[in-house]
Amino acid sequence: MSGPGRLVGVGTGPGDPELLTLKAVRAIESADVVAHFAKLGNGSNARTIIAAHLKTDQIEEPLLYPVTSEIEKSEAAYQSAITGFYDASAKRLAGHLDAGLTVAVLSEGDPLFYGSYMHLHVRLAHLYPTQVIPGVTAMSGCWSAAGMPIVQGDDVMSIVPGTLPETELSRRIAGSEAVVIMKVGRHLAKIRRALEAAGRLADAVYVERGTMAAGVVQRLAEKADDVAPYFALVLVPGWRGRP
Amino acid sequence: MSGPGRLVGVGTGPGDPELLTLKAVRAIESADVVAHFAKLGNGSNARTIIAAHLKTDQIEEPLLYPVTSEIEKSEAAYQSAITGFYDASAKRLAGHLDAGLTVAVLSEGDPLFYGSYMHLHVRLAHLYPTQVIPGVTAMSGCWSAAGMPIVQGDDVMSIVPGTLPETELSRRIAGSEAVVIMKVGRHLAKIRRALEAAGRLADAVYVERGTMAAGVVQRLAEKADDVAPYFALVLVPGWRGRP
Repeated sequence: MSGPGRLVGVGTGPGDPELLTLKAVRAIESADVVAHFAKLGNGSNARTIIAAHLKTDQIEEPLLYPVTSEIEKSEAAYQSAITGFYDASAKRLAGHLDAGLTVAVLSEGDPLFYGSYMHLHVRLAHLYPTQVIPGVTAMSGCWSAAGMPIVQGDDVMSIVPGTLPETELSRRIAGSEAVVIMKVGRHLAKIRRALEAAGRLADAVYVERGTMAAGVVQRLAEKADDVAPYFALVLVPGWRGRP
Repeated sequence: MSGPGRLVGVGTGPGDPELLTLKAVRAIESADVVAHFAKLGNGSNARTIIAAHLKTDQIEEPLLYPVTSEIEKSEAAYQSAITGFYDASAKRLAGHLDAGLTVAVLSEGDPLFYGSYMHLHVRLAHLYPTQVIPGVTAMSGCWSAAGMPIVQGDDVMSIVPGTLPETELSRRIAGSEAVVIMKVGRHLAKIRRALEAAGRLADAVYVERGTMAAGVVQRLAEKADDVAPYFALVLVPGWRGRP
C-alpha cells in the first residue's frame, strides 16, 4: 500500500438503522477498521445501529471510556483521565492510518454536533486525509417521531443543555421561538420550573428514545414524575402560525 | 383498495444524493405519488436529489409556488396567495390519499426544520395516517464539509435567520457559544457588522452549497465581497477547547 490511510467520521443517525445514509453505509462497508466509542461494560450504541453492515474481515477498534462517573467533570482528575483517553485513542487509530488503512469512526447522530468523534478529529484531521459524513441528529429524530413542526420562517431556535442554571435556562427559553433542551437526565425538575417561569411549559414535549420502537413522546405537563434518562430531550416548538 | 392512503414527509438531506437515508429511499420507491415543491419555472432541488430512485409508474405531483417575489412578505396579498397555495396543494394530495394511495412529499434537509412540508403536515396529518422521515440538515452538511466541530459538552447553539435586525443578531451571536446564521443572501454586509460588534468575526466561516462538488467554504473575514445566495450559511463554531 502507498501513502497514509483515510480517516472517516461517520454519522450513524439517531438510532433506527434505516436512518443511516447511503454514504454512511458505503463508508462502513469499505473501511478496513471500524472504531466506536463505548463505556466500559456497555456495548456501543453506534455499533448496534450499523451491525448489519459489518463484515467479518474488518478490524474492530472499540474505544472504551475510562470509568469516570464517580469523578466530577470539573475536577482535574477527570480532565486528565479523559484527555489521556482521547490521546491514546488517537494514537491507536494513527497506527492504522500510518499502515495505509481506511479508518471509519462511528458517531451517533451527527459527528461534529456534540459527538465524541470530534476529539479524534482535532487530533488527526490535520495529519491525514479526512472526511466527515453528516448524520441525522437525535433532535431531528425526536421531533419527527413526535410529528411536531419545530421551526419555520424567521424563527430563532436555541439548543441548550439541561445542565445550565435555572435562571439561565429560563432566560434562553423566553428569548427564542423554539428550544431544544438536551442532556435532560436528573435536571428534569429544574427544566420544568424554568419552562414554567418562561411561560412555555404548556408547549413543551418530552421525548425519550425518539426513533426507537419503545420510544416515549408526551406533553411534559402530563408527565407525572421527573425521572428521565440522560439522552431524553425536551422540545418547545416555535411554529404555531400557518400562512 | 381499502381505507385511506398514507402521507409520508421525506427528508432528502442537504443535496448530495448519497446523503439520503435508507428509509427515505424505501419510502420514495414504495410511494404511489411523489410530490415536490418548486418555484414556477425552476426544477425542484429535492426531486433532483432523489431522481435516481423514481420509477416510471409513479405519479408525480409538482407543487408550484405562485410567483410572489415581487410582493413583500408582510403584505396581505402575499399572505393570501401563499395560504391559498398551501390549501390547494393539501387538497390535491388529499384526493390521492382518499383514493388509498401512499403520498411521499419531498423536503430538502429535514421536513420539520424550516421545511415547506410542514404546511401540508398541519393541514393533513390529523386526517390521514402520517409518517415523517427525518433528514440530514443543510447546516450539518455545511459544518461537515468544512470539517468544523460545531458544539461540544455544555455549549449553547443558536440558529438565527440573517433577516433579523443588526443589534438583535449581534446580541444573539454574543450570547451563544455556537451560531448558525441561515438565509444569508442580501444580508451578508449586516451579518458581518453584527459579528464584528459581537467580537466573533474572526471565527466565522462562510459556506455555500456545502455538500455539492462546487461548494465554497472560506473564512468570512477573507471573503472579499458581500454577494451571497439565499441558502448560504455563516457558521460560528462553539468548540475550541479540547479535553
